[in-house]
Amino acid sequence: MTQDPLPVDGASLQEVSNKPSSEKHTIATRAEDYSQWYLDIIDVAELAENAPVRGCMIIKPYGYAIWENIQRILDARFKETGVKNAYFPLFIPQSFFAREAEHVEGFSPELAIVTHAGGKKLEEPLAIRPTSETIIYDAYSRWVHSYRDLPLVLNQWVNVVRWELRTRPFLRTTEFLWQEGHTAHADEQDAQKRTIQMLEVYKKFVQEILAIPVIDGQKSDSERFAGAERTYTIEALMQDGKALQSGTSHMLGTSFAKAFNVSYLDKEGGRQFVWLTSWGVSTRLIGGLIMTHSDDKGLVLPPNIAPIQVVIIPIWSTDAERDMVFAKAQEYAVILKSANVRVEIDMSDEGRPGPKFFAWEKKGVPLRIELGPKDIEAHSVIAVRRDNSEKQTVSEEGLVSFVSEILPRIQQDLFDKALTYQKERTYTVNSWDEFKEKIELGGFLMAHWDGTAETEAKIKEETKATIRCVPFDSKDEDGLCVYSGKPSKKRVLFARSY
Amino acid sequence: MTQDPLPVDGASLQEVSNKPSSEKHTIATRAEDYSQWYLDIIDVAELAENAPVRGCMIIKPYGYAIWENIQRILDARFKETGVKNAYFPLFIPQSFFAREAEHVEGFSPELAIVTHAGGKKLEEPLAIRPTSETIIYDAYSRWVHSYRDLPLVLNQWVNVVRWELRTRPFLRTTEFLWQEGHTAHADEQDAQKRTIQMLEVYKKFVQEILAIPVIDGQKSDSERFAGAERTYTIEALMQDGKALQSGTSHMLGTSFAKAFNVSYLDKEGGRQFVWLTSWGVSTRLIGGLIMTHSDDKGLVLPPNIAPIQVVIIPIWSTDAERDMVFAKAQEYAVILKSANVRVEIDMSDEGRPGPKFFAWEKKGVPLRIELGPKDIEAHSVIAVRRDNSEKQTVSEEGLVSFVSEILPRIQQDLFDKALTYQKERTYTVNSWDEFKEKIELGGFLMAHWDGTAETEAKIKEETKATIRCVPFDSKDEDGLCVYSGKPSKKRVLFARSY
Repeated sequence: MTQDPLPVDGASLQEVSNKPSSEKHTIATRAEDYSQWYLDIIDVAELAENAPVRGCMIIKPYGYAIWENIQRILDARFKETGVKNAYFPLFIPQSFFAREAEHVEGFSPELAIVTHAGGKKLEEPLAIRPTSETIIYDAYSRWVHSYRDLPLVLNQWVNVVRWELRTRPFLRTTEFLWQEGHTAHADEQDAQKRTIQMLEVYKKFVQEILAIPVIDGQKSDSERFAGAERTYTIEALMQDGKALQSGTSHMLGTSFAKAFNVSYLDKEGGRQFVWLTSWGVSTRLIGGLIMTHSDDKGLVLPPNIAPIQVVIIPIWSTDAERDMVFAKAQEYAVILKSANVRVEIDMSDEGRPGPKFFAWEKKGVPLRIELGPKDIEAHSVIAVRRDNSEKQTVSEEGLVSFVSEILPRIQQDLFDKALTYQKERTYTVNSWDEFKEKIELGGFLMAHWDGTAETEAKIKEETKATIRCVPFDSKDEDGLCVYSGKPSKKRVLFARSY
Repeated sequence: MTQDPLPVDGASLQEVSNKPSSEKHTIATRAEDYSQWYLDIIDVAELAENAPVRGCMIIKPYGYAIWENIQRILDARFKETGVKNAYFPLFIPQSFFAREAEHVEGFSPELAIVTHAGGKKLEEPLAIRPTSETIIYDAYSRWVHSYRDLPLVLNQWVNVVRWELRTRPFLRTTEFLWQEGHTAHADEQDAQKRTIQMLEVYKKFVQEILAIPVIDGQKSDSERFAGAERTYTIEALMQDGKALQSGTSHMLGTSFAKAFNVSYLDKEGGRQFVWLTSWGVSTRLIGGLIMTHSDDKGLVLPPNIAPIQVVIIPIWSTDAERDMVFAKAQEYAVILKSANVRVEIDMSDEGRPGPKFFAWEKKGVPLRIELGPKDIEAHSVIAVRRDNSEKQTVSEEGLVSFVSEILPRIQQDLFDKALTYQKERTYTVNSWDEFKEKIELGGFLMAHWDGTAETEAKIKEETKATIRCVPFDSKDEDGLCVYSGKPSKKRVLFARSY
C-alpha cells in the first residue's frame, strides 16, 4: 500500500523537471502574431495539444466537451431530417480508390497505408479512410435493390486520416474527427434537394449555435470534392481576414454509383443507377469557433456551445467565510442547473479572486458570477460577461431570470459582432489593382470572374486567393472579369483561406 | 435530369443480379447449428455484415442504434462518477509499446502497422491503437504535476484494431468500437476503489439495461490484462454454455507510471508515481445481448436497450380502411411518444399482417401492437409480447398505462429467464471426471483449483476450459484442486469461452 518514491536523481527525475508548468503560459496578441495567438488560445484554454505523432493532436477534456456538444446538437438535427447512423470500417482496400478516377487522383497522395498486420505482410495493402465514399457505396450496392429501398440516408461519426504536409490544431490535422453523411436517391432532383437541405442544416447550426456568420454557395469546378458533380459550401471569415471552409455538401451524381454498381429496379421494372450525396463537418469547426470570437485575453465561447455557460467564483478570506460562500454557491448552482444552465463552481482552494478570474476568462466561459460574504449579505451577486466585460449586480431572487435572459443576449451579440466584422471586411472590387490591394488587407472579395479554371489558377498564383464559392445570393449582374477583362454574369467570393 | 439506364447486359448487370434478396434469409435453429444461428440472427435482424476487409464488419443502422443506446446510457453513468471524455490519437509510435514489458508481449502480435503515408515510407512505423494505455500515459506524464491534479479520470469512445486470427461479428473483430477509461490516482487505495467502482457500473448496466446476469470477480494471473497488476471482470453465460467476458477493469499499479514517468509532487513535497487504472466495454456487448435472449424466430431485445420498443402494425384490405388505420396508428404513436416510449409504425405498403409480424419478430421489437378496422371499432388494440408471444386485447384508454407497465415487466422477465438459465447451468464439481463430463454439457463450473498457472494451463489444454474469474462471492472453503488434488481455499469459475 505504500507509494513508490521516485529516485532523487537520475534520468527519470530530469524528465520530470522538464514538465511544462501551466502557469507560464501566456497569450500573444492578435496584432503581434495571429498564428501564435491561435496556438496560445488552444494552450491556455486547455483545448488540445500536439500528439507525439506528427500532425496528430490530443483533444483535451475541455476541447472534447465542445465537440460533444457539436455532436449532440447536430446529430439530433440530422435525425429530425430522417438520418440514421451506422458504422463502416476504418480500412479500405486500396483498389477501391482506383474505381473512381477523380477520387483516386484527389486522395491517393494523402493516404496512410497499412502494409503489415498480425506480424505478416498483407496481400493487399489497406488504406485508412480519408473519407468513406468508396467503402460505403460498395455496401450500398448490396443494400439497394428496388425503389422501395430509396432514399437511403445514413451518417457516421468517425475518425479519418489525411496525410497533410502542413498541419495546425483543429484546422488541419493528420487525423481528425468528423461526421460524413452518405445518401442514395432515385433521381437527381431528390439528391439535389438533400444536398442543399444538409448545407442548410450546417448553416443554421453554425450560425445559431456557434454564432459564426457564413456565406453559402457553390464551389467552382477546381474546388469541387474529388468525384463530385457539384460541391456546396459554407464559408466563414476569421479575424485575420482568411476564409475558413466550415462545411461542405456534395451532389455526387451517378459516377460513384457506376463505379460501385449501385442500382435499383424502378417502378416500371427498369434498372437505374442511384444518385448519391455526401456531406460533412469536422473538428475544424472548433478552430473556426476559436478564431471567430476569441480575444487577447483568451477563448470566448458562445453560450449555446459552451461546456460551461456560467462559472460561480466563491471569494473569501477566513475559513468561516469559505464555508458560507461555498454553501451559497452550491445553492445557486442547483437552482441554475434546474433551469437547464450548464453551471460550475470554481472549487479551487484559493480565496483570492484575481487568478481565478483570469483562469476562467482564458477558458471563455460566457458568464462569471462572483460571490463573496458581502454579496451574500446583500442578497445579490456580481455578474460579469466574458465577451464585453460588462459587470452588474443581480439580486438573488432575480438570478435565474437574469441568467436565462443574458445567455441568449450574449449569443446574439457575438453573432452580430462577427457579422459586422464580416460585412466590414467584404469588399466589392472592380479592378485587378483594387483586388491586389484589398486581398492584402484580408477579407472577402466579391469580384467578377470569367468562369475559367485558367483565370482562377492565375489569380491564385499571383495573390494566393481562391474562389471560396459562388454565393447563392450573388445577383445576376453583367460585368468584366477582374483579371482577364472577359464578360462575367455574376460576382464570386474570393479570399485567402485556411 | 434523366436517369442513366443500366446496360442490358455486360459485367455490371451480372453483378446486379447477384445481389442477395433479403427475403431468402432464414434462421438455423440453435439446436441444429448454434454458430450459424448466431450469424443468421445478425443477418435477418439487419444488425451487421462482413466488410470487404478481413475480420472487419459494417454495423448497420439497426445494430448501430443499439450501440448508440449503450453509449448514451453508459456515458451518462460514467459522468455521474466524475468521468470526462477526451480523444487521443489513433496512431501510436511502435516504440511506445516496448516501454512496458508485459504490454508489448501481449499486444505486439496483434498490431496493424502503418509503414507508408503521403506517398513516402515513414521513419518510424506507426501502430494503430489496440488499446491506448501507452499514448494516454505519455500525455499524463505532461499533465500531472502535483497531487492537486489527481485523480485524473478520463475516458474515450473510439475504434481500436487487433489483428485477430479467428473473427466473429461483434464478438471478435479486427476493428471494434469501445470505450476505454484511464484514471490516475495518488495512491493504491484510490486506484483500487475506482477499479471496482467501474466494474460495478458495468455490472449494473449489463444487468439492468441489457438484462444479462453476470458473475463478477478477479482474473487469474494468466488471464490478466497485459501490464495490469489485477484484472476484474464480469462474465456472462451464453445459450450454448460458453462464457462471454463482457467488461473488464484493471488496476495497473505503477508499472505504466514508471514506464511513462507519470509522477506528482505530494503534499509533503515528495515525488510519487501515480497509480493507474483502465477499464473498457466494447461492441462485443451486442454479441452478448444477441446470444442471451434471442430465439429461433429471431432477435429478442430487452426494452431498456431496444431502439424500437413498440411497433404498431396497421392491418387493412381496402384503401379507405388503410387511411383510417394509418391515422389511428399515428394518433397512438404520438401518445406513446409523449410517454417516452420509442415507438414506430410499420409504414410498408402491404395490408397482409403475416409477413410484417415475421419481419418485426426477427428484429426483436419487445412489443407489437396490431391495429385493424375491427380494433378501431372496438376502441382497442391487440398487443403481443415478443419474448413469450403472450397476446392480449388492450383498450384504447388503457394503452399508455399498459405499455408503461408491460415494458419493465418484459425487461424483468428476460433477466429472470437468463438468470434461471445461468443458475441451472452452473455446476459445483468436485472431481476431475465430473469436471470433464460437465464441461461437455456447457456451463459454468465452480471448482477448487490449486492456484498455480501450471494446473490452469493443463486444464485448458485438456478441456479448453479457462478460469473465467475468482468470483467475489466465492466463499472461503477448504478443498482439493479438481485437477492436482492439492489444497485449495476457494472455488473458482471455469468455462469454455468466446
